[in-house]
Amino acid sequence: MMSDRQSLEQLRQSIDECDESLLALLKKRQGLVEQLVAHKQASGEAVFVPEREQAIFQRMAARADDFGLDTELVRDILQRIMRDSYTRQARIQKCITPQHKASPSIGDQPLQSKKSICVIGGNGQLGGFFVEQFRLSGHSVCVLDRDDWADAEHLLSNKDLVLLAVPIDDTDATIQRLSGLSADTLLADITSVKHQPLQQMLKVHSGPVIGLHPMFGPGQSHMARQLLLYTTGRSPEAADWLLRQFRQWGCYTESLDAEQHDAIMSTVQGLRHFVSFIAGWQLMVNGQSLDELLRVSSPIYRTELALIGRLFAQKPELYVDIWLKGEQTQSVLNAFGDCFKQAESWVINGERTQLINQFKQIAEYFSHSNADFFQQSDTLLEAFRERVQTN
Amino acid sequence: MMSDRQSLEQLRQSIDECDESLLALLKKRQGLVEQLVAHKQASGEAVFVPEREQAIFQRMAARADDFGLDTELVRDILQRIMRDSYTRQARIQKCITPQHKASPSIGDQPLQSKKSICVIGGNGQLGGFFVEQFRLSGHSVCVLDRDDWADAEHLLSNKDLVLLAVPIDDTDATIQRLSGLSADTLLADITSVKHQPLQQMLKVHSGPVIGLHPMFGPGQSHMARQLLLYTTGRSPEAADWLLRQFRQWGCYTESLDAEQHDAIMSTVQGLRHFVSFIAGWQLMVNGQSLDELLRVSSPIYRTELALIGRLFAQKPELYVDIWLKGEQTQSVLNAFGDCFKQAESWVINGERTQLINQFKQIAEYFSHSNADFFQQSDTLLEAFRERVQTN
Repeated sequence: MMSDRQSLEQLRQSIDECDESLLALLKKRQGLVEQLVAHKQASGEAVFVPEREQAIFQRMAARADDFGLDTELVRDILQRIMRDSYTRQARIQKCITPQHKASPSIGDQPLQSKKSICVIGGNGQLGGFFVEQFRLSGHSVCVLDRDDWADAEHLLSNKDLVLLAVPIDDTDATIQRLSGLSADTLLADITSVKHQPLQQMLKVHSGPVIGLHPMFGPGQSHMARQLLLYTTGRSPEAADWLLRQFRQWGCYTESLDAEQHDAIMSTVQGLRHFVSFIAGWQLMVNGQSLDELLRVSSPIYRTELALIGRLFAQKPELYVDIWLKGEQTQSVLNAFGDCFKQAESWVINGERTQLINQFKQIAEYFSHSNADFFQQSDTLLEAFRERVQTN
Repeated sequence: MMSDRQSLEQLRQSIDECDESLLALLKKRQGLVEQLVAHKQASGEAVFVPEREQAIFQRMAARADDFGLDTELVRDILQRIMRDSYTRQARIQKCITPQHKASPSIGDQPLQSKKSICVIGGNGQLGGFFVEQFRLSGHSVCVLDRDDWADAEHLLSNKDLVLLAVPIDDTDATIQRLSGLSADTLLADITSVKHQPLQQMLKVHSGPVIGLHPMFGPGQSHMARQLLLYTTGRSPEAADWLLRQFRQWGCYTESLDAEQHDAIMSTVQGLRHFVSFIAGWQLMVNGQSLDELLRVSSPIYRTELALIGRLFAQKPELYVDIWLKGEQTQSVLNAFGDCFKQAESWVINGERTQLINQFKQIAEYFSHSNADFFQQSDTLLEAFRERVQTN
């Protein structure tokens, strides 16, 4: 018994020593990555290159196998270390004066030269984020905000890019004021709906036009792995440098048609937020104590509750205007409401067979997708459990 | 330029060497933990002890600070390593013949002695999971499944525990058959609704009764950090060993009143699954291609889609019967439906102010909660992005 104790103690101590070595190793790696980043910055290389990351993961997965380690364990840890380094890089970038290079290279493509940019609404949250990012990348950026319209002619003249970053409700009126842009200025917006603003921009401006929809907010520490949707307006080649700039920042870019964008977003954004809005409302009506709910909730529900709570921590206009401006929101809400009513009446009347058959039909629809990541949801849930319960 | 290249190459190589050392370290730690687990199993110690884990995190956070490392980075990595070791422990357990100890100790409390258990529905998924766990922990377990009722008298006689693990729809009828249990047998169920089954069990059986609701499915690799809800029926002291057994497996246990349980679950389970059901239905009605949706979705929406898809990968009865049996589901569905209709009419009529005011009122309700984990949702989203997009 006594020797058992001792060797238990020894084991615990050896594990502690391992953990200590782990910290030292992380620190050492951080120093090396910092040097690598300095190189990258000097040469204008992208912060995040998906292909390179994939190559590292594949090599390390093979090595993990050699060691008899779980490959997913190794991938998760590496990913977490890399996330830390992206965040640190973004912070480091913000502290240095960017050096503008005439034409260094990103991969095989020449990096864009210095551009002259005006961000309308550049004092707002997301607008301000882009102003900062453009400046860090060596571009010359001016801001045209609410009180600067007296200077508009000067601020907007001879720009390579005029980027519209105003609230969705002000988009229409703001575009109307942009009729005097130079013919080779690229006009872009970042509104969450795309069809109407794009039509308007094409009407008002005769030069190149592109619609952007960054699928992320201003609260991000870096753009690595973020998604940027874009929809082409006119002269796509003129927007090429801008999309490459986003990719250099680490974004994935996906193109889609404006109407298709709005149709999908009416579900992905409009309906989804609307349902969260109603779910929050129902909890309030129910007089449920959130703290009591949390005490007895599974990790999935805690996560869903966190996502609902996240909605209500933002400005209402952000969501309400998407519902009101989305051309297809009403029909999507209507379809959801109809299905709800139908299923509710089955529950009230105890129509078990109807409910089960409907369920099976929808399951059939889901089974046709290639979305094999559904199988990952156990791992996802495991991650929720760790994050949500231990804090 | 040439020397730049070389030193870049050197840096990359040094980073690779770091990663190689990391693998070696993980492997070494795994070996040490395996020895520790062997000790724990011999002495009947719990696999997962929240307090001990917390102590390790705190100590390591302090050390991370000393090293100038991000404490969250270190915590996340340690947590991931520990998850791996819980999973491995559960797998190891399944390969060994459990050694029953007369009364070793878990912390300061004496461990339960060997119990005699009958699991009704023990060939089902969740029932089978518990049969396996009980056996691994050294108890004597028999199964009474659909075709074994001829032997029921023998299988149920003189048990310490009879655990009901049948589908919710069969619960009533099965309880009716349990009138002949020994007076000191503990009768327990794991149904997702608690009030009615508990009342029935109390009526049929005069001995100790407890209602359990494990907030997890049979697909788990281990029970560490899982949540078990329980509701006391009669003679709670007789269920003490059972709750301690769950804690030894790593579960958190939370007690609540049966009616309160059902009220909360009508929201947490009933409504939540119902809304996911409708969301899946709406996508099908809309004829949306899931693959196209995924291509242009943000990590949050991909996660939500994964949770919806997860629902439709399960048996319909699991959900449908919760909706039909939940005594308060109808009123919760009704409240949700009313809020939805109201808000939808505001959208149709363009009542922006109404929507914004309602939003603010709900935000107020959410702000009263102590649920400070809302602030964590950025970190959560970062984790989603890594998991969902790189696969």
